Amino acid sequence: MTVEIGRLRTLLDGRWGPIREEVRDQIRAAPLLRPVHGLPVEAYRARVMEQARLVSQTRSARLFFPRQYGGEEDMGGALSAFETIALVDLSLLVKVGVQYGLFGGVIRRLGTERHHRRYLHAAMTMELPGCFAMTETGHGSDVQSIRTTATYDPARQEFVVHTPDDDARKDYIGNVARDGRMAAVFAQLITGGERRGVHVVLVPIRDERGRPCPNVRIEDCGDKGGLNGVDNGRLWFDQVRVPREALLDRFGTVAPDGTYTSPIANETRRFFTMLGTLVSGRVSVSGAGLSAAKVALAIAIRYGLTRRQFRVPGRDQEVILLDYLQHQRRLLPALATTYAMHFAQSALLESLHEASDGDSADESQQRQIETLAAGLKAISTWHSTQTIQTCREACGGAGYLSVNRLTELKADTDVFTTFEGDNTVLLQLVAKGLLTNFRDEF
Amino acid sequence: MTVEIGRLRTLLDGRWGPIREEVRDQIRAAPLLRPVHGLPVEAYRARVMEQARLVSQTRSARLFFPRQYGGEEDMGGALSAFETIALVDLSLLVKVGVQYGLFGGVIRRLGTERHHRRYLHAAMTMELPGCFAMTETGHGSDVQSIRTTATYDPARQEFVVHTPDDDARKDYIGNVARDGRMAAVFAQLITGGERRGVHVVLVPIRDERGRPCPNVRIEDCGDKGGLNGVDNGRLWFDQVRVPREALLDRFGTVAPDGTYTSPIANETRRFFTMLGTLVSGRVSVSGAGLSAAKVALAIAIRYGLTRRQFRVPGRDQEVILLDYLQHQRRLLPALATTYAMHFAQSALLESLHEASDGDSADESQQRQIETLAAGLKAISTWHSTQTIQTCREACGGAGYLSVNRLTELKADTDVFTTFEGDNTVLLQLVAKGLLTNFRDEF
Repeated sequence: MTVEIGRLRTLLDGRWGPIREEVRDQIRAAPLLRPVHGLPVEAYRARVMEQARLVSQTRSARLFFPRQYGGEEDMGGALSAFETIALVDLSLLVKVGVQYGLFGGVIRRLGTERHHRRYLHAAMTMELPGCFAMTETGHGSDVQSIRTTATYDPARQEFVVHTPDDDARKDYIGNVARDGRMAAVFAQLITGGERRGVHVVLVPIRDERGRPCPNVRIEDCGDKGGLNGVDNGRLWFDQVRVPREALLDRFGTVAPDGTYTSPIANETRRFFTMLGTLVSGRVSVSGAGLSAAKVALAIAIRYGLTRRQFRVPGRDQEVILLDYLQHQRRLLPALATTYAMHFAQSALLESLHEASDGDSADESQQRQIETLAAGLKAISTWHSTQTIQTCREACGGAGYLSVNRLTELKADTDVFTTFEGDNTVLLQLVAKGLLTNFRDEF
Repeated sequence: MTVEIGRLRTLLDGRWGPIREEVRDQIRAAPLLRPVHGLPVEAYRARVMEQARLVSQTRSARLFFPRQYGGEEDMGGALSAFETIALVDLSLLVKVGVQYGLFGGVIRRLGTERHHRRYLHAAMTMELPGCFAMTETGHGSDVQSIRTTATYDPARQEFVVHTPDDDARKDYIGNVARDGRMAAVFAQLITGGERRGVHVVLVPIRDERGRPCPNVRIEDCGDKGGLNGVDNGRLWFDQVRVPREALLDRFGTVAPDGTYTSPIANETRRFFTMLGTLVSGRVSVSGAGLSAAKVALAIAIRYGLTRRQFRVPGRDQEVILLDYLQHQRRLLPALATTYAMHFAQSALLESLHEASDGDSADESQQRQIETLAAGLKAISTWHSTQTIQTCREACGGAGYLSVNRLTELKADTDVFTTFEGDNTVLLQLVAKGLLTNFRDEF
């Protein structure tokens, strides 16, 4: 069988092939986008921020944003670009993912026109490095129970954002420890003495010169198992005041006098509608995990085709590793599964794109995409963890040297099974979705 | 059910309990033996060398060495001490493992009295930091095909040690990049123009002031996925001359005129007898992997017993993670398997101890221990890799912070499935052993 590589690539690249090719060209052309290893944390963070600024000047950034704010508004293209950027360095992927997908995404999805007008362009160009401050030390999977409060003060028409205790500090938040200027803070909204559930307010955390804002405490999460180019940190708010307009109020708004109104009456339904913002993040983590698995497989399979060990009696040349059935059985099923997942990922990308980035008015379509994204994210990130591990082992001692990338790919993707939704919890979400659909049949 | 902790510990500690307790006391007492993280490579290596020197003043070192050279000669005790040291830092474990188990071990097992007299005490006290230079870039699992040569020159009664090309350089060798003074070099012995198979010669690689010896080239392997406190490196020998006495000649000796004699006529049998030296190394890697899995399980299970997430309707307190069946199913089978492997490891330790450290005159006993060690090393290190990974995931974002140790335990033990025998190859050794035994029944 002969394979025409160009045609195979076109098939794999799919609908957003030209965008993938454009990003690959950028990677080839920019020395700054070469993978490195062994940098001290400070230098690594600085490099990743510099890389992110480079990306912010390209289409990869613009694809995430609406046309009226300078963007090109193409979610399928944006996520395809992300999958390609993931080939460079997963810290960079997460850094720009936080900036465009999460920070930009939450403003776009939960904000209204005044937020879009004021912030989206600056988010796109990285003039305003932002954070997505959802998780707290005490509450990760159970976002609905977070304990940061945003209490409306009608006298001054401001929200008072407050961290009641250390358990409620924002934790593991990307872009916090070094670069972020503003945080989209998930908090329990309180107006007229009544709790209105989780909402998001925009809170400045550093001034133009990078100094923490008054009453905002910032802490570095320190060394992590991987992704050390991302500056994860913690945030405490001590009665921090922000104007009434800081509330991202698409699904719940507060009038000057404190009257709360929402287009969605049921609080839990409102909460899950707002959480729908996470769907593109999950799709991008799934894609990035698969990109890492592809890099690892390319390295391990190429090595397996050149590395020889042990002689067959009577033959002079040693046997190449991939001629051993055992070696084939380790790598080839992982390769086949990765191809299958690549196409599943592509199909999900198309659905998401068609359904207005998971912001569909059709509720059953929206629910289906959320279920698929949750399921594929869990399955594909576990697949990546296992595949990269297998690739490392299949390369022996060489696989353990940082220069050969496998250990870093493993370390960087390790947390993919945790963030953007813990895999175990996500699969329960999938099960719940399936059972609900089943019930609806009767 | 109540468990009396002291009695449980006594049961688990087993025959060498007092030694384990002694090492635990040393760990508690010495600030230098506290786990750290995030050190730059140079500082980390310096710290581990300092820790190793501390260990060299204790019984943990002496247990490996014969009484007549100042040791206490107790292999079961020595390996029990190692399992306990593994709780501190796996770089330290590997550092002292290379020094006592491999470098000291090969001199003891393959050398004769003059080598013992000259080197064993200095190896024990770390006055002579040594390396075990077996693996080459081109040959890892297939040691019999290594290509470094040691050619006897009867005119000067010297061996000429030579690296023919880069493929034959010694690679991944612990203690090479920074601290080693002498290497036990595995090489093809050539006398009278004839190849005699793999033998070991002692070659000085650095002088007293730490400068590389003439015609010895040393290179640093650089950053690794873990174990960065160990200075792995590469060695090239350019016609390096060592005296005739440098040959470890228990199983093959060269007379001044170049005549070769060996108590084992068959070259392959001689080779495998010499490789028997590896058995205690494999047992210690198996034990260290299990120690790491125990640390990881202790961390994850304790966390699972305090961390709460999600509320049950109608109850005020949130549910602790370990009350979720799913969480139990992730951690408890791994815990049970670890207990089982602990006892398998203890039994293997006893057998090894009784069989004179796998240097038994009884060939079938020796073969059985080698098979058990190979099998348990493969099974237990894969178990550790998987268990630590599960523990990391079970601790969510907290599990990804270096300060919580899980990512480092994972990274450090990762190569345990590769070194001291690639697991896949080891299991084939086990299969071969079983088939040979089966054949012998007829």
